[in-house]
Amino acid sequence: MRLSPNQNAIGVIERLAADPVSGVTVREIGDANVYDFGVKVDGTLAGGLALAEICLGGLGRVSLVPCDGQRFVSANSIYVQTDAPLLACLGCQYAGWPVQADDYFAMGSGPARLHRGREAMLQKYDLGDSESKSAVVVLEAESFPTESTIALIAEQCGVQAKQLRVCIAPSTSIAGSAQVVARSIETALHKIDELGFDVRRIVSGTGCAPLPPPAKRGDMIGGIGRTNDAMLYGAEVTLYVNCDDEAVESIYEKIPSCSSSDYGRPFAKIFADYDHDFYKVDPMLFSPAVVTVCNLKSGRTFRAGKFLTDVLRESFLS
Amino acid sequence: MRLSPNQNAIGVIERLAADPVSGVTVREIGDANVYDFGVKVDGTLAGGLALAEICLGGLGRVSLVPCDGQRFVSANSIYVQTDAPLLACLGCQYAGWPVQADDYFAMGSGPARLHRGREAMLQKYDLGDSESKSAVVVLEAESFPTESTIALIAEQCGVQAKQLRVCIAPSTSIAGSAQVVARSIETALHKIDELGFDVRRIVSGTGCAPLPPPAKRGDMIGGIGRTNDAMLYGAEVTLYVNCDDEAVESIYEKIPSCSSSDYGRPFAKIFADYDHDFYKVDPMLFSPAVVTVCNLKSGRTFRAGKFLTDVLRESFLS
Amino acid sequence: MRLSPNQNAIGVIERLAADPVSGVTVREIGDANVYDFGVKVDGTLAGGLALAEICLGGLGRVSLVPCDGQRFVSANSIYVQTDAPLLACLGCQYAGWPVQADDYFAMGSGPARLHRGREAMLQKYDLGDSESKSAVVVLEAESFPTESTIALIAEQCGVQAKQLRVCIAPSTSIAGSAQVVARSIETALHKIDELGFDVRRIVSGTGCAPLPPPAKRGDMIGGIGRTNDAMLYGAEVTLYVNCDDEAVESIYEKIPSCSSSDYGRPFAKIFADYDHDFYKVDPMLFSPAVVTVCNLKSGRTFRAGKFLTDVLRESFLS
Repeated sequence: MRLSPNQNAIGVIERLAADPVSGVTVREIGDANVYDFGVKVDGTLAGGLALAEICLGGLGRVSLVPCDGQRFVSANSIYVQTDAPLLACLGCQYAGWPVQADDYFAMGSGPARLHRGREAMLQKYDLGDSESKSAVVVLEAESFPTESTIALIAEQCGVQAKQLRVCIAPSTSIAGSAQVVARSIETALHKIDELGFDVRRIVSGTGCAPLPPPAKRGDMIGGIGRTNDAMLYGAEVTLYVNCDDEAVESIYEKIPSCSSSDYGRPFAKIFADYDHDFYKVDPMLFSPAVVTVCNLKSGRTFRAGKFLTDVLRESFLS
Repeated sequence: MRLSPNQNAIGVIERLAADPVSGVTVREIGDANVYDFGVKVDGTLAGGLALAEICLGGLGRVSLVPCDGQRFVSANSIYVQTDAPLLACLGCQYAGWPVQADDYFAMGSGPARLHRGREAMLQKYDLGDSESKSAVVVLEAESFPTESTIALIAEQCGVQAKQLRVCIAPSTSIAGSAQVVARSIETALHKIDELGFDVRRIVSGTGCAPLPPPAKRGDMIGGIGRTNDAMLYGAEVTLYVNCDDEAVESIYEKIPSCSSSDYGRPFAKIFADYDHDFYKVDPMLFSPAVVTVCNLKSGRTFRAGKFLTDVLRESFLS
Repeated sequence: MRLSPNQNAIGVIERLAADPVSGVTVREIGDANVYDFGVKVDGTLAGGLALAEICLGGLGRVSLVPCDGQRFVSANSIYVQTDAPLLACLGCQYAGWPVQADDYFAMGSGPARLHRGREAMLQKYDLGDSESKSAVVVLEAESFPTESTIALIAEQCGVQAKQLRVCIAPSTSIAGSAQVVARSIETALHKIDELGFDVRRIVSGTGCAPLPPPAKRGDMIGGIGRTNDAMLYGAEVTLYVNCDDEAVESIYEKIPSCSSSDYGRPFAKIFADYDHDFYKVDPMLFSPAVVTVCNLKSGRTFRAGKFLTDVLRESFLS
């Protein structure tokens, strides 16, 4: 059988479309089908889980699970597991595409990025999707893309607009919050790549992060703040790798968020201190609170990081 | 696609019927198919989860999850999530139909109630099922309904008896215990409605309650006691709402069970003190131990209540 | 419908084979299809869950769930639930077949054992599979079976080699670790049988054990050590029974591992002290850390055992 993340994502969309209470609506913009997970609608939990699996190109499983509500300031967590971490998380899920049209901007993620292929990360690891002529992109945004945005996305992906499916939710919606905190493994992989570790050595992974209460509609900083706090102060990731121990030993203590000097305060405050300029925030901050690396080659386990639930309290209950 | 809770419930029944170890048997009584989840059979965990989804008209997902066995005096919880809380929980799951025939009595729940339509709650929120000519009712009882009971149910639902499916389990069976403690969101919604909040504002919800050990077969008070204790002292519910904060602020502290003066003792004892008359028990008691309300409109979270695991210990281990 | 554990297991294999990232490869050895879950491949989490369900003859549900990583020295647990505990666990899952050919040895489990029928346990409880002419065996081993081994397995099962499916993983692989710690209910049942309790009285069960980091490839003692420690010091099982209380009262305190004098140290050390001879280890040691028995007949609950997470720490992080 053939492996196409875009085709997998379409499968998830179609199963969702058959569910009358998914809370997802569809409209056509410039020949493309645009699925609303949280712009004009409140969004749903089931929609959020599906959106997260769409982001992963169908190569991971995402579920809602109960957690210790008193400790994590949320009674529910988003749990993700994948056996194709590189392709699923960096190839598809990573929000590495700034979709910039004359009249629209959103961060883009999802398997359509494999068709576009412009990001250095995709080229570095030779990631693509040769099995599908369709493209699925996920936009984190508060409004629908314009027709010219659709044309630009289609053109950059090398597909016809009618072959393009666009899924959209703001981080302040239920579905948007869920899909962002489903990025725990991805966040760890991205950090690990930055630390110089060859992420192709990562065989499988699991991640769990508390589902924060969505921030007020329109409060994008709040939405970014809470979802980042869920990751930085409440997420736990386990990675299975197959490599020499030295490659892990030299980096594992730097993987979790506490290795950053910015660690310790709500992300919205850190962000404000840097004048809301992402590029000024220490890039080492963006990672799960706790990361465990199990090396299949040696049988050794490397665990680092800590939860900081007081910050979750300050953030989620603000 | 069309939304029919009764049709959804039939789908759940048919998937279950295809499972050779479901532990569910079927018989015909007065032209209706009657599914035994725990009367003549011990019942099963899988049957209990399916029964709970049948009660919800297929509009929620119910799963068995592990929990802290030492804390909750049960190593398993019943976790429920829905994106159609009003229709699923009050429209279908609520046990609001006292099925009273000359020779039989049971509390009735499930999507058949939508066809009957007599309850004030259904009329208040204009809940129905116009998409199905079939009806699925769930009975909490220790014996099978009589033929005249079947005729009465069919007549009140406006369907032919052969279009009626009856699912039955006592609360003292595995499946019966599971389906009752799957009512955590429903219990919260019912209380919230009593407190004067417009439950149409509730977008989505999750709930988790420990699965109590079934009481001794035939000990209905014991069965009611343990399942209520699981709810009152061990259940946690999260609701996503979209409304003004004032509507939540004025009621949220009253939602959990601890707002009742009857709170604090095993339900079987409270019930005995009121001469086993449900109508004498403080209606404010019936709600989950801990309830969190996340308001999408404001981004604010309201949390109230507390677990009382000593009562779970006293109840489950009696 | 008919109940065939071997046919069920084939269904699980075929669903897995349709998943391009299952990490499972297939080869033909002596006319049989041999599925590699961890010999030449690293193996996957999804493969491990499927392998565990194959062992159970498809009669139980196995899932990966998050757990308290700090407490259980692993952030993930393997959770198993079954409503056919005797047939699923002792009939299929128990590794009761020492597959011994001239040139090969492995412990065999899975529904093929029902066809072979030679084990005393299968005869005692009259367990078989008359509904399938195919056989599925699971081997815990570090290398592929030889052609003569395949011929021996087929012959002992009374099937043609082409009707035989062999699944294989070492306990030092991800999938192998997962399938071994999915044996929490089975381990309890086996111990209970040894204690003289009629396991036909067990209606349903759940079990949860931490997923240990796989030991170093080739370190079989390490693999056996960690998976046993997960069971002995970290697993919790709940059993629903229907019998007289006396039958439970007389044995329940002996069910958990702490009833053995060997309890308290990592299994690899215990094993070394007995010169790596399984038959010298106290058979009472092999059981979950905590076991709860809920008696449907009486409504009483019997709970015994304790976790010993310090040993998990010593074992998993060695």
